[in-house]
Amino acid sequence: MPELRRNIATGEWIIAAPERAKRPDQFIKEAANRKRAQKHDADCPFCEGHEESTPPEVFAIREKNSKPNGRGWEVRVIPNKFPALVPSEVSGLNAYRSKVGIHLRIEGVGNHEVIIETPDHQLSIGTMPVKQVENVVKAYRDRYLTLDENPDNELIIIFRNHGERAGTSLYHPHSQLVTTPIVPSYVRNRMLEGVRYYDETGVCVFCDLLAFELRDVHRIVAENNDFVAFCPYAAGVPYEIWIIPRRHEASFGEIEPQERPGFAAILRTTLGKLYKALNNPDYNYVIHTAPHHSATVPHYHWHVQILPRLTTPAGFEIGSGISINIALPEQTAKHLREAPEP
Amino acid sequence: MPELRRNIATGEWIIAAPERAKRPDQFIKEAANRKRAQKHDADCPFCEGHEESTPPEVFAIREKNSKPNGRGWEVRVIPNKFPALVPSEVSGLNAYRSKVGIHLRIEGVGNHEVIIETPDHQLSIGTMPVKQVENVVKAYRDRYLTLDENPDNELIIIFRNHGERAGTSLYHPHSQLVTTPIVPSYVRNRMLEGVRYYDETGVCVFCDLLAFELRDVHRIVAENNDFVAFCPYAAGVPYEIWIIPRRHEASFGEIEPQERPGFAAILRTTLGKLYKALNNPDYNYVIHTAPHHSATVPHYHWHVQILPRLTTPAGFEIGSGISINIALPEQTAKHLREAPEP
Repeated sequence: MPELRRNIATGEWIIAAPERAKRPDQFIKEAANRKRAQKHDADCPFCEGHEESTPPEVFAIREKNSKPNGRGWEVRVIPNKFPALVPSEVSGLNAYRSKVGIHLRIEGVGNHEVIIETPDHQLSIGTMPVKQVENVVKAYRDRYLTLDENPDNELIIIFRNHGERAGTSLYHPHSQLVTTPIVPSYVRNRMLEGVRYYDETGVCVFCDLLAFELRDVHRIVAENNDFVAFCPYAAGVPYEIWIIPRRHEASFGEIEPQERPGFAAILRTTLGKLYKALNNPDYNYVIHTAPHHSATVPHYHWHVQILPRLTTPAGFEIGSGISINIALPEQTAKHLREAPEP
Repeated sequence: MPELRRNIATGEWIIAAPERAKRPDQFIKEAANRKRAQKHDADCPFCEGHEESTPPEVFAIREKNSKPNGRGWEVRVIPNKFPALVPSEVSGLNAYRSKVGIHLRIEGVGNHEVIIETPDHQLSIGTMPVKQVENVVKAYRDRYLTLDENPDNELIIIFRNHGERAGTSLYHPHSQLVTTPIVPSYVRNRMLEGVRYYDETGVCVFCDLLAFELRDVHRIVAENNDFVAFCPYAAGVPYEIWIIPRRHEASFGEIEPQERPGFAAILRTTLGKLYKALNNPDYNYVIHTAPHHSATVPHYHWHVQILPRLTTPAGFEIGSGISINIALPEQTAKHLREAPEP
């Protein structure tokens, strides 16, 4: 059973999940290898026809008359088979804090789900039809709203790991969702930055930032009626991109159904341009959203952060929290703006 | 000329250093390769006899009668040839904040130095004689104290990148030192954790932590009269190790000359055990220290954080600041305690 632990010196929480270790010697250096891309992979647990090799689905978009956990789906959401956190209903444990000597701990309570984005083994968000991305967004929103009904899910993180350098273990296109029973200090500190700005100006810092970037234009990558994608002024890595809704919404749960196509379109456009500009680079993206109990605050604004994994953070970044970025966002934004889509 | 930039939404600072980019297409995927180890490498700019291929040294431990920037040294400190930050004396620029629209910026003012740890191309801290590690520690302390005389150096970060996965570009054993003209929010937030604990208990949180771990014993890796090495309770990655001085010292600049041998010994022992236990894994270490203007506070305590690069942080870690660690520190500490030294 995994657990959450808090570092008494830094205030940072981690999840200790030793069950996820494959074997003791896996920490000893070994070469990585990557699955070749094809439309269907006989060994892939996420490909159509292999539904029995995953836990039962908790959400799906399916053909009429198709059966749960059978063929005929477009998007499937399943619990992670090797979860970092396990729901209370499954473990019977609760998320109360307790102490081990001076240390604070919590049982590893939470949800860890996988959003299988398409039956097609070789596509990804940047290359699939935009209608399929809309299905993915529909799944994100449905699971977010469902899991947000439980106030023990203090934070809901939706993210995507693309490629080996981004930490993918399975090639088949998928996103993940984790709910945590705490608000980590990392998120708290970001919320507090927003509070300070709001108290000084009376305005959401993200709203101000968006207005400025739209006027400045140099760092804009793409935009539509509801969303804007840009390389942040202080990008931490080459080709970092943020996608922000124009409308003030603190929580991803606040996204309106009519904003879904716009969100799908800008995700597809931005990741498609990244795919073309850099020849399918590895990347992570994450949806930053306000915690459950701050879902409608005026000082935070949900957004997507896309982080291509092109460089290796080293000792300086680790020690200072300061990234050294060897690319200018004005130049990467221009490159992406001018890049075609697949 | 590089510059510092602050993300208005997160409060985080970064360094924009586009001059460090080798060529525009380096962001497109390429395979890594690693220099084979040998005692002397004809192509290595840090090997003895190649002193002319580096900028002139700013510190060295040398044989009597040997000349600066010639043969006969044991440790050499040089400015980084491709610096992330450049000293005011060189650039003529200052570290004042200015604005670009709503964004805050500072010229890229600071020091970036390389500590060449030994003339021997194939050694590293875990495998070199402990007397040589004492020389390295002497260089760390000398440069720290010298650069700390300039109050513009708000923070001094000493770190070491070992192996490709840790971001090394040059194989020859070396550490680095960077001074920044700001205190990053990452460090501020950690300081504030210490303040809160101190205000509640009247005690340094690191002093309390050390006392607890010594009583608990399960996570101790090694100890001597002046230092203790242990795997933190909330270790963020497998085999993470912290080295802490027993005496309360907020800043690395407070280390006493008589503590140097003990610090060298525990660094050598700990990294030697890591070398043996995991077959020379890649790792970063960083000396976390109080900023210049907090050099003697009672609520912070300098320490070394060793982070083996065995796993890949992915979208969840990036989005939440919560690491998922697949190893228990109680087990990794035992493994390291029982491991021999080279």
